[in-house]
Amino acid sequence: MNNEICRMLGCEFPLFAFSHCRDVVAEVSKAGGFGVLGGSSFTPETLEEELTWLDEHIDGKPYGVDILIPENMGDLASDVSIEELQSMVPGAQRRFTVDLLRTYGIEVPEDELVQAELPGIIGDVGEQLMDVAFRHPIKMIANALGIAPPSMISRAREHSVPVGALVGAKEHAIRQVNAGVDFLVAQGTEAAGHCGEVSTLVLVPEVIDAIKDIRPVPVLAAGGIMNGRQMAGCMAMGAQGAWTGTIWLATPEAETSEAIREKMVAASSRDTIRSTARTGKPSRQLHSAWHDAWHGPDSPGTLPMPMMSMLALPSFERIDRAVENGNEKAHDLVSYWVGQGVGLVGSVKSCRTIMHEFKEEFGDSVISMNDVLGI
Amino acid sequence: MNNEICRMLGCEFPLFAFSHCRDVVAEVSKAGGFGVLGGSSFTPETLEEELTWLDEHIDGKPYGVDILIPENMGDLASDVSIEELQSMVPGAQRRFTVDLLRTYGIEVPEDELVQAELPGIIGDVGEQLMDVAFRHPIKMIANALGIAPPSMISRAREHSVPVGALVGAKEHAIRQVNAGVDFLVAQGTEAAGHCGEVSTLVLVPEVIDAIKDIRPVPVLAAGGIMNGRQMAGCMAMGAQGAWTGTIWLATPEAETSEAIREKMVAASSRDTIRSTARTGKPSRQLHSAWHDAWHGPDSPGTLPMPMMSMLALPSFERIDRAVENGNEKAHDLVSYWVGQGVGLVGSVKSCRTIMHEFKEEFGDSVISMNDVLGI
Repeated sequence: MNNEICRMLGCEFPLFAFSHCRDVVAEVSKAGGFGVLGGSSFTPETLEEELTWLDEHIDGKPYGVDILIPENMGDLASDVSIEELQSMVPGAQRRFTVDLLRTYGIEVPEDELVQAELPGIIGDVGEQLMDVAFRHPIKMIANALGIAPPSMISRAREHSVPVGALVGAKEHAIRQVNAGVDFLVAQGTEAAGHCGEVSTLVLVPEVIDAIKDIRPVPVLAAGGIMNGRQMAGCMAMGAQGAWTGTIWLATPEAETSEAIREKMVAASSRDTIRSTARTGKPSRQLHSAWHDAWHGPDSPGTLPMPMMSMLALPSFERIDRAVENGNEKAHDLVSYWVGQGVGLVGSVKSCRTIMHEFKEEFGDSVISMNDVLGI
Repeated sequence: MNNEICRMLGCEFPLFAFSHCRDVVAEVSKAGGFGVLGGSSFTPETLEEELTWLDEHIDGKPYGVDILIPENMGDLASDVSIEELQSMVPGAQRRFTVDLLRTYGIEVPEDELVQAELPGIIGDVGEQLMDVAFRHPIKMIANALGIAPPSMISRAREHSVPVGALVGAKEHAIRQVNAGVDFLVAQGTEAAGHCGEVSTLVLVPEVIDAIKDIRPVPVLAAGGIMNGRQMAGCMAMGAQGAWTGTIWLATPEAETSEAIREKMVAASSRDTIRSTARTGKPSRQLHSAWHDAWHGPDSPGTLPMPMMSMLALPSFERIDRAVENGNEKAHDLVSYWVGQGVGLVGSVKSCRTIMHEFKEEFGDSVISMNDVLGI
């Protein structure tokens, strides 16, 4: 397609696929889209492996990396140790988790319930992930939460790599553009994961308008986009492309378990919840018994980032494993980050099929608009 | 335009303007759109006046009426009297309101604070409003909340008037289509007034998909739509037109006070709240000190419909009057039903200008889509 973001990032069809799974990234880029690997779930060593694999399998097509470097981690020292973080997960929340899992037939000792490795978003792990990323021929780097740190922008400049930033409010868009990013992803409240309160339909034109007299960088639309007609709709509003996540979770290539994919196919758009019960910040997830418990009357309250993740991550590993091992009760707890668009998932499809359908639907949509206008 | 909804309702440009103000309805219809008068704020007598005025001023163009007949009013008897309803507004909430208004310099005796007339949504007032509506050459009738009552559908059939229904979830869409409505308005969570939790971008394709094998009636998009590019975007997703409300509140023709229009121009999309503190059901409004108080730690809790409105309506009349009389403190309480699209209101414009801009932006949007595809 003939627009600025395609020229900037070297892709043919401005459909961006955010995924934690290298296979999704490779398939999307090879089909003319732009795969973005979510880097924060990796250690520097495993990210090195993933990017090496990508370089060998992506046929020279462009791809990017998304790293989550929170702007504000409260009072946490940057050199905080894993032991210190563990000690900040209070007994009440540990016991509540043990009891909750037990109710669903999952037995875990209290001391095995808290993450044993330093989360990727702490200290200089973000810088180490960037060290890795910039050793590879990435064509884009993005920060998923808060303002892109100055080091990301300066290092990206050195490597001539465009920088993107996800924003959930126009005020954030203005700050990001002033900080020097090359493009924005306006992500509506319907999106999976960390999201704000404003819908994609409102946020996209609001962001475009807010930055037009500062520096009119390309804006991608994110949140709820599951097909080519919606992508066309967002571009009709002025977005230069679509940034997607949830749709790729319902593919055989994705990292999701079968239980999650089944729940996704069965879900309607009302089966998500924007909750602090997974990372400590509001993030949109498949609504499950986990959230009912944490937001129920007996809850000790959710914890701030990163302590909530340190408790939730090992818990969800146990939940998924329990379901795989035939514990049907545990099915009620299964959850993952999905957007409201989950209501549009009718079946599990390959990445290649999804890419093909997006392009067809996009074309059909433009033709139908011409028809209605009699062009 | 050449589509089913334009043929069904006899309009040229499928932009629907919901308004409580007859001037807005007339201006929009005369400019090729379709004005819809919100009927539930009127008595049968005043609705008769409004529709007579419209018939004299709308130059024979089509218009419709929207009546709010809630499907479920809990345990309320249909022949409940105004005295009985008044007695159901507890002392705690009356005193809380008196104290809240007093804090902002507005003195009201407790016994003057509760609505003195039967609300339009109670008993057979809805039927009486329909009696009035069907005496006029209306081209459409809609029910704004819950399933369209059988009497609305049968009476509309007798008069050959198409029936529309607003839905906020695909399950409601299926029920409405099974009940016999002629078209749907899929209204996202970003909309003003009573709304669900699913965004317009997700709800529109979800509703279209959910009804396509039952009876594929036309679906209009509602919620957040403030300009012609967004309208084009929604139609690119498969909607047959756009149903709008908030944009018409920032016009000189509207019923809104100057204080509300000023607040609208200043607001961002994050300045709304979906709250029970105005009607008793969740409805989206301009966030003000009123909501902070009712959802704050000292609140006695909001009341169910219609009791909350019976307290809020007279309160907001006093608030608006106080502001008009120079009480600057009361400005903090000012609120009205607006959607998240309020963040896209840059200035107050006439209805005629808005209609003109919508059409221009719509055309520009389709052209830009062709450009990007190289058509």
